[in-house]
Amino acid sequence: MPRNIRVEKLTQTPIEKQEIEIVERKGVGHPDSMADGFAEAVSRSLCNEYIKKCGTVLHHNTDQVEVVAGRSCPEYKGGELISPMYVLLVGRATKEFQDCKIPTDTTAVKAAKQYLKNTLPDIDSEHDIIIDCKLGVGSTDLQSVFRRGQAPMANDTSFGVGFAPFSETENIVYNTERQMVLNFKKDIPAIGTDIKVMGMRKNDKITLTVACAMIGKYIDDASHYFSIKEELSDKICDLAMKYTNREVEVFVNTGDHEESGCVYLTVTGTSAEMGDDGSVGRGNRCNGLITPNRPMSMEATSGKNPINHVGKLYNLLSNRMANDIAEKVPGIEDVHIRILSQIGHPIDQPLIASAQVIPEAGANMSVIKSESEAIIDQWLADITKVTEMIARGELDTF
Amino acid sequence: MPRNIRVEKLTQTPIEKQEIEIVERKGVGHPDSMADGFAEAVSRSLCNEYIKKCGTVLHHNTDQVEVVAGRSCPEYKGGELISPMYVLLVGRATKEFQDCKIPTDTTAVKAAKQYLKNTLPDIDSEHDIIIDCKLGVGSTDLQSVFRRGQAPMANDTSFGVGFAPFSETENIVYNTERQMVLNFKKDIPAIGTDIKVMGMRKNDKITLTVACAMIGKYIDDASHYFSIKEELSDKICDLAMKYTNREVEVFVNTGDHEESGCVYLTVTGTSAEMGDDGSVGRGNRCNGLITPNRPMSMEATSGKNPINHVGKLYNLLSNRMANDIAEKVPGIEDVHIRILSQIGHPIDQPLIASAQVIPEAGANMSVIKSESEAIIDQWLADITKVTEMIARGELDTF
Amino acid sequence: MPRNIRVEKLTQTPIEKQEIEIVERKGVGHPDSMADGFAEAVSRSLCNEYIKKCGTVLHHNTDQVEVVAGRSCPEYKGGELISPMYVLLVGRATKEFQDCKIPTDTTAVKAAKQYLKNTLPDIDSEHDIIIDCKLGVGSTDLQSVFRRGQAPMANDTSFGVGFAPFSETENIVYNTERQMVLNFKKDIPAIGTDIKVMGMRKNDKITLTVACAMIGKYIDDASHYFSIKEELSDKICDLAMKYTNREVEVFVNTGDHEESGCVYLTVTGTSAEMGDDGSVGRGNRCNGLITPNRPMSMEATSGKNPINHVGKLYNLLSNRMANDIAEKVPGIEDVHIRILSQIGHPIDQPLIASAQVIPEAGANMSVIKSESEAIIDQWLADITKVTEMIARGELDTF
Amino acid sequence: MPRNIRVEKLTQTPIEKQEIEIVERKGVGHPDSMADGFAEAVSRSLCNEYIKKCGTVLHHNTDQVEVVAGRSCPEYKGGELISPMYVLLVGRATKEFQDCKIPTDTTAVKAAKQYLKNTLPDIDSEHDIIIDCKLGVGSTDLQSVFRRGQAPMANDTSFGVGFAPFSETENIVYNTERQMVLNFKKDIPAIGTDIKVMGMRKNDKITLTVACAMIGKYIDDASHYFSIKEELSDKICDLAMKYTNREVEVFVNTGDHEESGCVYLTVTGTSAEMGDDGSVGRGNRCNGLITPNRPMSMEATSGKNPINHVGKLYNLLSNRMANDIAEKVPGIEDVHIRILSQIGHPIDQPLIASAQVIPEAGANMSVIKSESEAIIDQWLADITKVTEMIARGELDTF
Repeated sequence: MPRNIRVEKLTQTPIEKQEIEIVERKGVGHPDSMADGFAEAVSRSLCNEYIKKCGTVLHHNTDQVEVVAGRSCPEYKGGELISPMYVLLVGRATKEFQDCKIPTDTTAVKAAKQYLKNTLPDIDSEHDIIIDCKLGVGSTDLQSVFRRGQAPMANDTSFGVGFAPFSETENIVYNTERQMVLNFKKDIPAIGTDIKVMGMRKNDKITLTVACAMIGKYIDDASHYFSIKEELSDKICDLAMKYTNREVEVFVNTGDHEESGCVYLTVTGTSAEMGDDGSVGRGNRCNGLITPNRPMSMEATSGKNPINHVGKLYNLLSNRMANDIAEKVPGIEDVHIRILSQIGHPIDQPLIASAQVIPEAGANMSVIKSESEAIIDQWLADITKVTEMIARGELDTF
Repeated sequence: MPRNIRVEKLTQTPIEKQEIEIVERKGVGHPDSMADGFAEAVSRSLCNEYIKKCGTVLHHNTDQVEVVAGRSCPEYKGGELISPMYVLLVGRATKEFQDCKIPTDTTAVKAAKQYLKNTLPDIDSEHDIIIDCKLGVGSTDLQSVFRRGQAPMANDTSFGVGFAPFSETENIVYNTERQMVLNFKKDIPAIGTDIKVMGMRKNDKITLTVACAMIGKYIDDASHYFSIKEELSDKICDLAMKYTNREVEVFVNTGDHEESGCVYLTVTGTSAEMGDDGSVGRGNRCNGLITPNRPMSMEATSGKNPINHVGKLYNLLSNRMANDIAEKVPGIEDVHIRILSQIGHPIDQPLIASAQVIPEAGANMSVIKSESEAIIDQWLADITKVTEMIARGELDTF
Repeated sequence: MPRNIRVEKLTQTPIEKQEIEIVERKGVGHPDSMADGFAEAVSRSLCNEYIKKCGTVLHHNTDQVEVVAGRSCPEYKGGELISPMYVLLVGRATKEFQDCKIPTDTTAVKAAKQYLKNTLPDIDSEHDIIIDCKLGVGSTDLQSVFRRGQAPMANDTSFGVGFAPFSETENIVYNTERQMVLNFKKDIPAIGTDIKVMGMRKNDKITLTVACAMIGKYIDDASHYFSIKEELSDKICDLAMKYTNREVEVFVNTGDHEESGCVYLTVTGTSAEMGDDGSVGRGNRCNGLITPNRPMSMEATSGKNPINHVGKLYNLLSNRMANDIAEKVPGIEDVHIRILSQIGHPIDQPLIASAQVIPEAGANMSVIKSESEAIIDQWLADITKVTEMIARGELDTF
Repeated sequence: MPRNIRVEKLTQTPIEKQEIEIVERKGVGHPDSMADGFAEAVSRSLCNEYIKKCGTVLHHNTDQVEVVAGRSCPEYKGGELISPMYVLLVGRATKEFQDCKIPTDTTAVKAAKQYLKNTLPDIDSEHDIIIDCKLGVGSTDLQSVFRRGQAPMANDTSFGVGFAPFSETENIVYNTERQMVLNFKKDIPAIGTDIKVMGMRKNDKITLTVACAMIGKYIDDASHYFSIKEELSDKICDLAMKYTNREVEVFVNTGDHEESGCVYLTVTGTSAEMGDDGSVGRGNRCNGLITPNRPMSMEATSGKNPINHVGKLYNLLSNRMANDIAEKVPGIEDVHIRILSQIGHPIDQPLIASAQVIPEAGANMSVIKSESEAIIDQWLADITKVTEMIARGELDTF
């Protein structure tokens, strides 16, 4: 059956040419991202356990993880937690299948602790955080999901959304957080993981407002703190220059008051240690950004089962498609993808898969259409491969 | 100080002229909406309790409410719950202020129970649902919030987004759910509150996919169920015709299998009774819709404090501004509003308040600019009135 | 098989002739008794639901109920709760049996709410208390429990203990609480249910120390409070006189300070509203008393399954046996019963059933032995009737 | 003021001469003992933290700890947990004192994890168990507790109970568990910590029924299991012989069925891994035993604050006094101590401190009286030293 694919020319000012652009990224230690990260780590680990024990991924959704804030006493050269942070791994998972018991809850706890060590190393996993787990029972509806040689049925009527390529501001916002964690931290160990980068472009000027939780034990005193801020600000500015010729202005921790000594100091590098709770699906979209100028989906991607949860699959797929089209099809300024399912229908046969393309001046729209359609069709044909990519951890979800 | 307001002409195909449009609304009994509803009801009730006891709204955020699914045995002419649904009212609230103790948790429980009775009457509040409450302690930072005669300081660097007017499809999707609950239910008591309306317009054909949890006790048997579906489908079709001349196709509960007897039957009218959990901020935006073709914000609006939480205030404000501009300023096809705060700055002085306007052919852009700017400026000047409107319950948040 | 029954003469000063005697009773509104009461009400209700749905009582233990204190602002003529009390109905129950789903959790919630209304009427069940329920899964091991025409196998190696008759002090302590709740409250509505009666007899003088949570809304002011205390003290003294010719001294709420205004005032009549938590099995033994002079068991009786949980059955049975022997067998001062099970053996065949008898001077010990043995043997033969009496609510457990 | 001390001669068959005696001990890995152990470890650690930060022990009670069972798949040579065990450290603690914040919750978590490593080494603290902590707020009532140079005021009207010396059966039961954990395990690593020893003496025959959770990873197969049982049974028998010349019969894991392969196998050495929950105060009394033939108190000792909680102090004190009297005063068969407080009175001035003594034939009762009174008086005078001993961990509580 031919798929219902539409490629449409969109008359619209491309993002780079709009006057105002707003882009946000929450870093991996932001409480909402922590929730996303735990939810996806648990889901991935369950996928692999299911494959090991049962030969296939069984039904689960771990997308209700909650991060409940602790209380802390941050100090220069030290500080301690008063009450630990609390993470509740919650959701539903298949716990028994054909006489095989799957250790879902211990798997979840292990995955979360491993994730913690890999991603949030400044949190003492023994004493600063409690990882609790209360997975409810879910059940795998075999008929709808396992159809030999065929795509599973959609779990819901839902849609996914993606776009490409990233604008300059989007690239800067995304990479600022990534580089702070992966590179700048080597020189500035005080950098925490709870980073929020807000980029605002007004014509040719880009303003970056960066909130970064600083870790007290690596900082001697207030003057050290402020010198670190300056160093960090310079590094961010230098980094941004690689992506743009526009003017860039950087603000770091604008809430600080040098006189009153009120600064953004933490023990563990995240505001979850003191008052800020986090939930799955309320932060970055699966491309790593929050972009009010761009099409977005509300669906939480992290923690959803990657077999037939269209809210997860179609969002990840839309971004893959958009990236491929933007890279491989000539003459494209921006491309937006939307895929809509109908509950109970095969996931490789969406109700609609729509691409909106803003072509470059003079581009050949009919070439764009046929090549884009082919790319979309191929990804839909390969949709079960996306499930495997997710289980292998090859696709980011936030 | 003059405000930083930008009104920009946007070259873009207006929504009604785009080929593909996708619009979704989750009804009040959808688990995510339930979470939103409880969160906002609690916040509103706390506002009024704070005003009564302390003369002003104190700091709180109740936006982490969780709805945990129960287990049910639905049946025609009856059915019962096996395990009750569980609602955890969680978040943070100021519990003491100048020697006055505020009964935050009992206020929250009362508000939630009242909300339940008003909005979800088919749920037996005594036995089908557990309302639990574990509000953490928050504290009111007096300096930043209460500044005599002045606007409070922004709690965060964040943005709000709005647009107007609604397209035909948006109007249909929104009103389908509203009319099902408020009117159709009078004739068809089996209509539950967990309704999901997905609208997809492809050029001049609108497809509505409606999932509606049916209440077993009002239905005699399968044949009655299917006759109700038909009646409902007709009513929805008739309603849609009031908003459009386009072709409309309606699908109700497409997941049903008439042969196998598999239908969407519930005891209480919501899927939260059997396996579907819900969280705040993952459903409708504050205009009541999810619209991937339109600018959106990720911020949860429900349950946030309405004093200085820009994620809440700016989203509500953006939609007010957009509506006013669309109504009062002549020559406008679509208007998009974005407002961006910077932490620690007064909320009536955003970093940017941006309007993107798609003018009608021949419209006078300079008139549009000046009139739109005036409307935006006036709303920002009146921003503390929005706080009051929220406390009085005059603004919907989902 | 003959049962292993031993009746032994015990050389011991009978309780009434010992110099010092200490007896305690926690009233039904004491947090520990609340936990006991909820646990047993839930177990009883599950028994009846199991019988209704499956024809027999299935495995469950609901003896881990927790009462978590709220916070309150008591006042004369009023007062309100700041945070509700929280009751967690927890334990294990069989949720499915031969394709029948048993609504264990909703049954538990209903039972707890009903118990609340019947027993603790001054607590507003809607807003002052949260009844939560998280029953885990248990399973009925059919082989060991259901043996046609035979007694079930003991779930554990454990023992039960009982004695009779009550001493004067024991009767006074028990009936003081009972009469305060059932009779005195008609005249003095301010009497709460959280009553603790401590009786100490030193030779021929009995000192009663009574702590009684007073309910603010029924009291006008401090002078009213102290007049109520006096009235109550007189009534208790009069009551005690019915049970003894010894001297009786009564202290009510000795912690009060008339000068500082520090009194034992509550909103709901229980200290669970403000800081005092409660657990199952930490208060009264199943005869309603705590008696360090007497043999006691540590086993929680309330909430245990009444089929094969010897910790419950043997405690209730021991007291029945002791009462029967004390009433029917002539020449007995005191009788103590102990019954010891061995896991996996039939519950009507204990490892030992021992009676220790303190005979009156001149009593015929061989008659006592044979009659006591007969009574013990009969009760063991009828042990499954005890299960039925428990399910019908005919036996108190605390 | 002279203290109210009574030493009374009790006419009673001494324990060793009674026909039937029942004694029980729950080992450190029994779920109820686990709860006791965590509760006391947390309290002790809080005491030390309070002393470090504030110079004195502040108010707290951590006696509501709950151990919620996990689910496991035990196997010979291995096995794994399906769901982790869950420990909730709950109770109340003073979190702020004179501008000093005390890290109560992190202290509690650290103490519990340390306790786990020291006492329950076969439980993987990383993945097999979740340590959660939700301490409520308590407050230190300074006036009643801190009275310069004087004893604090009693927190309640309550009593403590003790006796000495241990009978043969009591010694055997106590030391069986202790030696299994401390010595036998060196040779038989399969011995778990969840041990229940039930001793029954019938005249001159002692029957020991021992339930011991065996650890699968140290056992090759069923035949290995049963050979271990035999070895263990022999060792227990040999041990018992050191304490008695009576006949001793030992049963180990009587619930096993060799034919059906049903044995008492675990992954971690405790039944808390599979279905058995535990609570504070429902197991051993503070002398380490449950003894229905002996005076007992219902008060939970573990986790209570050691400053003015008479339920804790008087139980520990009663046993110290009884031991001292039994050791130092000549001519004593058995001694029972009971101490009764009245709320609001100094803890060194109990309402009554009563000793009941069963003298040896021919003992001089007036010497016994005067020497016993002196010992009791001295301990009451030194009562604040007991607080210090508890904080230093010198007194066992279960």
